[in-house]
Amino acid sequence: MNPHHRWRQRLYIIIFESDTPAGRRFDTLLLLTILASLGVVMVDSIESVHARYHGLLSGLEWTFTALFALEYLLRLYCSPKPLRYAFSFFGLVDLLAVLPAILALAFADAQYLLIVRVIRMIRIFRILKLRQYLAQANFLLTALRSSRRKIIVFLVTVSSLVTVFGTLMYVIEGPANGFTSIPTSIYWAIVTLTTVGFGDITPKTPLGQMVASLVMITGYSIIAVPTGIFTAELTQALRQEGQLLHDCPHCGKASHERSASFCSRCGSLLFPRRRGDDGS
Amino acid sequence: MNPHHRWRQRLYIIIFESDTPAGRRFDTLLLLTILASLGVVMVDSIESVHARYHGLLSGLEWTFTALFALEYLLRLYCSPKPLRYAFSFFGLVDLLAVLPAILALAFADAQYLLIVRVIRMIRIFRILKLRQYLAQANFLLTALRSSRRKIIVFLVTVSSLVTVFGTLMYVIEGPANGFTSIPTSIYWAIVTLTTVGFGDITPKTPLGQMVASLVMITGYSIIAVPTGIFTAELTQALRQEGQLLHDCPHCGKASHERSASFCSRCGSLLFPRRRGDDGS
Amino acid sequence: MNPHHRWRQRLYIIIFESDTPAGRRFDTLLLLTILASLGVVMVDSIESVHARYHGLLSGLEWTFTALFALEYLLRLYCSPKPLRYAFSFFGLVDLLAVLPAILALAFADAQYLLIVRVIRMIRIFRILKLRQYLAQANFLLTALRSSRRKIIVFLVTVSSLVTVFGTLMYVIEGPANGFTSIPTSIYWAIVTLTTVGFGDITPKTPLGQMVASLVMITGYSIIAVPTGIFTAELTQALRQEGQLLHDCPHCGKASHERSASFCSRCGSLLFPRRRGDDGS
Amino acid sequence: MNPHHRWRQRLYIIIFESDTPAGRRFDTLLLLTILASLGVVMVDSIESVHARYHGLLSGLEWTFTALFALEYLLRLYCSPKPLRYAFSFFGLVDLLAVLPAILALAFADAQYLLIVRVIRMIRIFRILKLRQYLAQANFLLTALRSSRRKIIVFLVTVSSLVTVFGTLMYVIEGPANGFTSIPTSIYWAIVTLTTVGFGDITPKTPLGQMVASLVMITGYSIIAVPTGIFTAELTQALRQEGQLLHDCPHCGKASHERSASFCSRCGSLLFPRRRGDDGS
Repeated sequence: MNPHHRWRQRLYIIIFESDTPAGRRFDTLLLLTILASLGVVMVDSIESVHARYHGLLSGLEWTFTALFALEYLLRLYCSPKPLRYAFSFFGLVDLLAVLPAILALAFADAQYLLIVRVIRMIRIFRILKLRQYLAQANFLLTALRSSRRKIIVFLVTVSSLVTVFGTLMYVIEGPANGFTSIPTSIYWAIVTLTTVGFGDITPKTPLGQMVASLVMITGYSIIAVPTGIFTAELTQALRQEGQLLHDCPHCGKASHERSASFCSRCGSLLFPRRRGDDGS
Repeated sequence: MNPHHRWRQRLYIIIFESDTPAGRRFDTLLLLTILASLGVVMVDSIESVHARYHGLLSGLEWTFTALFALEYLLRLYCSPKPLRYAFSFFGLVDLLAVLPAILALAFADAQYLLIVRVIRMIRIFRILKLRQYLAQANFLLTALRSSRRKIIVFLVTVSSLVTVFGTLMYVIEGPANGFTSIPTSIYWAIVTLTTVGFGDITPKTPLGQMVASLVMITGYSIIAVPTGIFTAELTQALRQEGQLLHDCPHCGKASHERSASFCSRCGSLLFPRRRGDDGS
Repeated sequence: MNPHHRWRQRLYIIIFESDTPAGRRFDTLLLLTILASLGVVMVDSIESVHARYHGLLSGLEWTFTALFALEYLLRLYCSPKPLRYAFSFFGLVDLLAVLPAILALAFADAQYLLIVRVIRMIRIFRILKLRQYLAQANFLLTALRSSRRKIIVFLVTVSSLVTVFGTLMYVIEGPANGFTSIPTSIYWAIVTLTTVGFGDITPKTPLGQMVASLVMITGYSIIAVPTGIFTAELTQALRQEGQLLHDCPHCGKASHERSASFCSRCGSLLFPRRRGDDGS
Repeated sequence: MNPHHRWRQRLYIIIFESDTPAGRRFDTLLLLTILASLGVVMVDSIESVHARYHGLLSGLEWTFTALFALEYLLRLYCSPKPLRYAFSFFGLVDLLAVLPAILALAFADAQYLLIVRVIRMIRIFRILKLRQYLAQANFLLTALRSSRRKIIVFLVTVSSLVTVFGTLMYVIEGPANGFTSIPTSIYWAIVTLTTVGFGDITPKTPLGQMVASLVMITGYSIIAVPTGIFTAELTQALRQEGQLLHDCPHCGKASHERSASFCSRCGSLLFPRRRGDDGS
């Protein structure tokens, strides 16, 4: 193996993996850089700070962009399959971290680029991914995925409820009381059903207040539905975790202690061998 | 079978069923038409849009009504038992989708017809029903139904709480602080107990703020009750899906505890092995 | 048995029990009367209604009071142990339904009597009690009682949190931004932690908004605690419901199918008889 | 044992333990003193009370400080290992209860000392600790600890959501509608996602209201996640309290599935009966 190749491999381990001390240090550094660049974006949006320190913040922004560009190039360089990396999800996210500055050169109105600059934050998940948190996230996602259909039924029901309640309130209260149009009234119904309750639009007529009470009690009660669905799925998932899933050949019992040799229900060997091998 | 009859049957399959590609395409088209007609109703309620585009939107509304009328007639035509369809739940909902326009010809004040026009949306559930979501909805409904009585006890308790707290606040704060009558105070208590908190009416006196704090902490805590009821029922429903169905070889008892080794009626082993396998 | 005694007994069955058609009719009538008297109290508190219909409403109130007084006397009369009834919980509540009118004769300022008049509503629970709902209510109460200590720990923690956060906000924001005193700031912390969010007092300084964000995320997260406690207890209670709780004399298994004769874990007789009676 | 030593030991039991009547009385007295000193701090922060009764309240504050100082010295005196006590968690908290007054002599601006004075409240937990509540608190803490990683994943996701949504709203609504900077917009996103909804900042543009609706529905749905995690862990914890602890008579394996009839390691019956009892 030539030394160049070796150096590239070591770089790969530092940048892409996180099991070595060097890799872990690189991850921590990257995390701090991402958070710092986010901080710059946020602080720069405050009027008074922008007026006084814009030059400094702009310089920092360019420094961070340069760092991210360098990191992107290093990732491309040390990756064994650069094209595959470039078009992977995190490859595109890494590219996105560099783009805003380049786009800002082309376009004067950088306002909408703010969002792209904030999306850099997704890269935090790359670092979490490299640690032990992925298993937990996966766990939650599995529970969510297996209750997908129940959640769709729930969301369609909620959408119908806010549409009907919104229209009803538009008819009852009318533009004079702030319910200026059906979309606005639906917005109010969402604000109320989700128990947020801004108070920018509120019912004034007795009938409107009665319908509003109904919306609130509905919202207060049906929050039980997503919670119940998710909790039931998670309890199910937790119970199966760390258990042996292998049907007993004799009685069919499906889940066993992880170390089980015999079925705890019928006492048969779970993994019977060819005739003669077996203890019977 | 005469060709006319065959054509009618094919139409039935397209319109009423959704297992064939044609049926699925029809459903999708219907879904889009319903959503579009809903969109027209909503957009037309915005003052500025109404002023400029009312002619166009009115034309679209008439087009959608004509389409729904055509669909209704086709359903009546191809249904094997037209009367039974006409008086079924979804038959009435389908009719409701056509009615508003006809009623609007008779009555000048179309304001209240808006609600009828929005109720068209219920037809979305007809389409969902024809897919695999019904089983999931049924699952949720079973859990809700089996906890019906617990929910009634909960709702009666909540109603009593808001009535007592509302009256208390009316007495403490009085009309001077916005609590103009007992019904208004009860409306405030509902807004507060459900943690919506519009802020249109708020307590001003120290004693009122103390009672309000009590209402809020109560509301924050008892939300556990509907959630707990629904989750427990759902967990129960999920678990009961798999009771052990295995006839006892001795007495024939058919259903047992999931983990049973011995029949609880006659004490025989449920899964006896060949003589000599058993450790006893 | 003399006819007088028989008539008294029949009255007892109608008034106190609800298994006969007559008893059920009496309960329904009483429920309607209670709701009507509540309605009168509420409607009378509306300024405009009070001005116009006070005479009528006052008359209705006196009628209801007379009815309740009559009912109270009948209950005393037909009860086998009148004194025991009079000092029972519901006996006192029944008396409370009559008191306000009598007290109103003595005191001019009837404002605080409103609450007593509303407490009549508790009598609704008497009617529910006589039906099948009591078991469900008991079920919920059992779950609440068995998690009593966990709930106290939770409430003490919440009280400490709102006190500390309230004081912190008083120091940070100060009277100039609406946080006029520590009790007011604690009231704000309760409004925020319970996710009610009236918006009558809101943080203005950046530091205050950061602390407020912390309070909100805390409140949003720890609502999981009462919900989790209650759900876990209820799931436990539901599982044990309708199961035979009798320790197996051989292996100690505690809960069995309701109809079990033999333990499903070890196959022993659950209720072994004296030597010789047993099938062994 | 000399009488001095005996007296010191008796004092130790009264002050540090709570199993004796004297210990319990001491705890109750201490609890009342702490609550009273908290009350003084709170009441003194009300403008009108401060103006009139400051002298009295200041005197009470000094009395309480003297009492706490005396208690601290007694604890140091009777503790068998005074240094170890002084540097224990509760030792430091006890010292903290005395410090504010001493610091107030040195510094004129006592505003920030308020927080130290309120932190005295933590001592309430010392008293709870000495009773039976600790087990329950521990139970809740175990459930929280074992779901630590899931909660971190959840909090990182929530933080990312509010950052992205906040920036989006800043771009859409802009400073003209109250979204003056990205930090302020993130504060708004937290207020909305947690369903608090103060209403001090609200979206005005249709697009902003649509994004706000999305934030609210997200917040309303994902509250299921912490609740589900905690409930599932608590249910798990409650269930694990009773695993079957019974040595296998053949191989000696000590812990088994709750419902096991046969040992999962050697396949022997866990509860063998006398020969002839068994149905096999």
